[in-house]
Amino acid sequence: MSTLPTCQTLLLGLHDSVLHITLNRPESRNAMSLQMVTELRAVLAAVRDDRQIRALVIGGAGGHFCAGADIKDMANARAQGQPAYRDLNRAFGALLQEVQRAPQVVMTVLQGAVLGGGFGLACVSDIAMADHQAQFGLPETSLGLLPAQIAPYVVQRIGLTQARRLALTAARFDGTQARRMGLVHFVEHDPQALAERLDEVLAHVLCCAPGANAATKKLLLASAGQPSDDLLDQAAEWFSEAVTGAEGIEGTMAFVQKRKPGWSV
Amino acid sequence: MSTLPTCQTLLLGLHDSVLHITLNRPESRNAMSLQMVTELRAVLAAVRDDRQIRALVIGGAGGHFCAGADIKDMANARAQGQPAYRDLNRAFGALLQEVQRAPQVVMTVLQGAVLGGGFGLACVSDIAMADHQAQFGLPETSLGLLPAQIAPYVVQRIGLTQARRLALTAARFDGTQARRMGLVHFVEHDPQALAERLDEVLAHVLCCAPGANAATKKLLLASAGQPSDDLLDQAAEWFSEAVTGAEGIEGTMAFVQKRKPGWSV
Amino acid sequence: MSTLPTCQTLLLGLHDSVLHITLNRPESRNAMSLQMVTELRAVLAAVRDDRQIRALVIGGAGGHFCAGADIKDMANARAQGQPAYRDLNRAFGALLQEVQRAPQVVMTVLQGAVLGGGFGLACVSDIAMADHQAQFGLPETSLGLLPAQIAPYVVQRIGLTQARRLALTAARFDGTQARRMGLVHFVEHDPQALAERLDEVLAHVLCCAPGANAATKKLLLASAGQPSDDLLDQAAEWFSEAVTGAEGIEGTMAFVQKRKPGWSV
Repeated sequence: MSTLPTCQTLLLGLHDSVLHITLNRPESRNAMSLQMVTELRAVLAAVRDDRQIRALVIGGAGGHFCAGADIKDMANARAQGQPAYRDLNRAFGALLQEVQRAPQVVMTVLQGAVLGGGFGLACVSDIAMADHQAQFGLPETSLGLLPAQIAPYVVQRIGLTQARRLALTAARFDGTQARRMGLVHFVEHDPQALAERLDEVLAHVLCCAPGANAATKKLLLASAGQPSDDLLDQAAEWFSEAVTGAEGIEGTMAFVQKRKPGWSV
Repeated sequence: MSTLPTCQTLLLGLHDSVLHITLNRPESRNAMSLQMVTELRAVLAAVRDDRQIRALVIGGAGGHFCAGADIKDMANARAQGQPAYRDLNRAFGALLQEVQRAPQVVMTVLQGAVLGGGFGLACVSDIAMADHQAQFGLPETSLGLLPAQIAPYVVQRIGLTQARRLALTAARFDGTQARRMGLVHFVEHDPQALAERLDEVLAHVLCCAPGANAATKKLLLASAGQPSDDLLDQAAEWFSEAVTGAEGIEGTMAFVQKRKPGWSV
Repeated sequence: MSTLPTCQTLLLGLHDSVLHITLNRPESRNAMSLQMVTELRAVLAAVRDDRQIRALVIGGAGGHFCAGADIKDMANARAQGQPAYRDLNRAFGALLQEVQRAPQVVMTVLQGAVLGGGFGLACVSDIAMADHQAQFGLPETSLGLLPAQIAPYVVQRIGLTQARRLALTAARFDGTQARRMGLVHFVEHDPQALAERLDEVLAHVLCCAPGANAATKKLLLASAGQPSDDLLDQAAEWFSEAVTGAEGIEGTMAFVQKRKPGWSV
């Protein structure tokens, strides 16, 4: 049995062969801090070769899944300059790659805010289920930033046609629309129904052989073609340029000051 | 005019410029035996350069399309060891490649069981129509096996997002859901309506010039990017490892013994 | 501020940061003449580096978007032989590539005929909205021709599964079906509603930073993989062979003579 790392930002619960991972920074709607990224990666690494753990279920504490990047990390990176932003961004991309490639079946349970990085995490899960009132969106461009590590996985999840509309308008949408777009597999109308759906789907997953599932997942990912390291590196460069450029400075400042940025008409 | 091969497992009927191919092993719900694979490939080869034959319509006898691989072939391969499984698997993949690339417009009419290899065959047809009660599914992982040659075509047909859920849960679904997922183009509620739909679509196909259709199909496939021989070879290796490994042995034995496999909770 | 070229086939209107481009050959349902292709390319080139122009809205005059290629250009090319067809076809493909890569957010407003080349133009727009009665289709194969430059973008827009049915049957469909297929993002029931939707979506676009949007669009396109020059060159060759071959001659002649071509049963 795997030894799980001690985590400050995550709650871990192992029930039978299913590891439940709860993003647990409810005071910031589970914003994806660098520490949370590091801890998630450590958990994935700890269970990678453990075929006893057959599914990972990722959810959020306090009624939200994840509201995106953490403001404090962004401020710290600002103090350190452009390369720090690049590395921060790329570390999140590495997490997305590792979730995508986890040999276990990864499920996400989506409630409340599913924004930016939270949206990205949903995109790399094998099976996603959402509350009908969950709020999805890619707000980055409205802040003068790019959904840099996320965009390749959004394109892979829902196709270029939907991805370009969502990213270029920063549109918000709910769980029902997420289902229609093919972003999530199931939408439910209350927490009880969501919990029942999770149980039902887990039962199906556990009818499948763990080794066969791991090999099949590898085959499916090879069939689809994966976002390359080169592309994700490039995206991190563009992100760091955007966040330290005029638009990024104005956009993030306007956000903090709760006003519209200069380009908004 | 092409000379068609004599077939034991297929019924062939040429009406005007349309070749109707009926999978005809109703005693096993048209399970895809090696002989059937060989005969289908021979038929495709015989008509490949015949622009008088403008459409191929593939259906099944006895109310089913195709329930997947043939148990007897699997047993024979077991006697011969791992390379025999690999070759058996890869031969089915070669059939899928050849159906995909057939210059004719290929249509599938889907009723009853559309499982495993039958599912794969549906995925490489140009136009698919299903009875609303048809039963679709990829049961492989629940048997400790992989949908090895099939997975790349499922990803291409319905995208990675739906493919990963279906393959990793071995979920069953009906014709209406297949339509919603974009796996089939039409769903009908009775055999009469299915036959009328087929006539209607064939009439449209026959309004299009045969050479232009063949060139356009080639262009569409080049645009989409095709599963490579390397990937399909790799998939056949993984299949042969799975079927001769502990999970494959347990899964297929449990299936024969009509009991749950050891990993199923 | 950019200097816009003088155009005979287009109406241009710059309102705030949005450039409205109206295809304006209503006597031929805005058929895409070589001159129109050239003028559209000149307009795109003129605004390419102008971040003050944040969105391009392309529509058609007289109740139609664009009915496809221009018959007169085709006749002229016939007089000049096969290479002229290839170049004419490829020039339209270059336009599609340039619209696809425009740093601005490109929107299409689709009414009436959206056929052939018009369909292609819709496929490279970031956000498409259609009247519910708009008529979409790829009629090429019914004329003995190929949707040569268009096919790669149709596959990218709606996937191989839908593209193969549409191209190989020359099927017509309306705005509601276009929405269901994921070809357009919005469908509305009257011109008033269409205009209101355009305003609403433009307001969202203008909340996003222009530089961030341009970089994000580049990233999305890099994530999706773009139809290559090689593929589009090849497609132009196949087109010129088809149009000068027996099927193309019969198909276009039958069209002009308002009769069914010889292959149509």
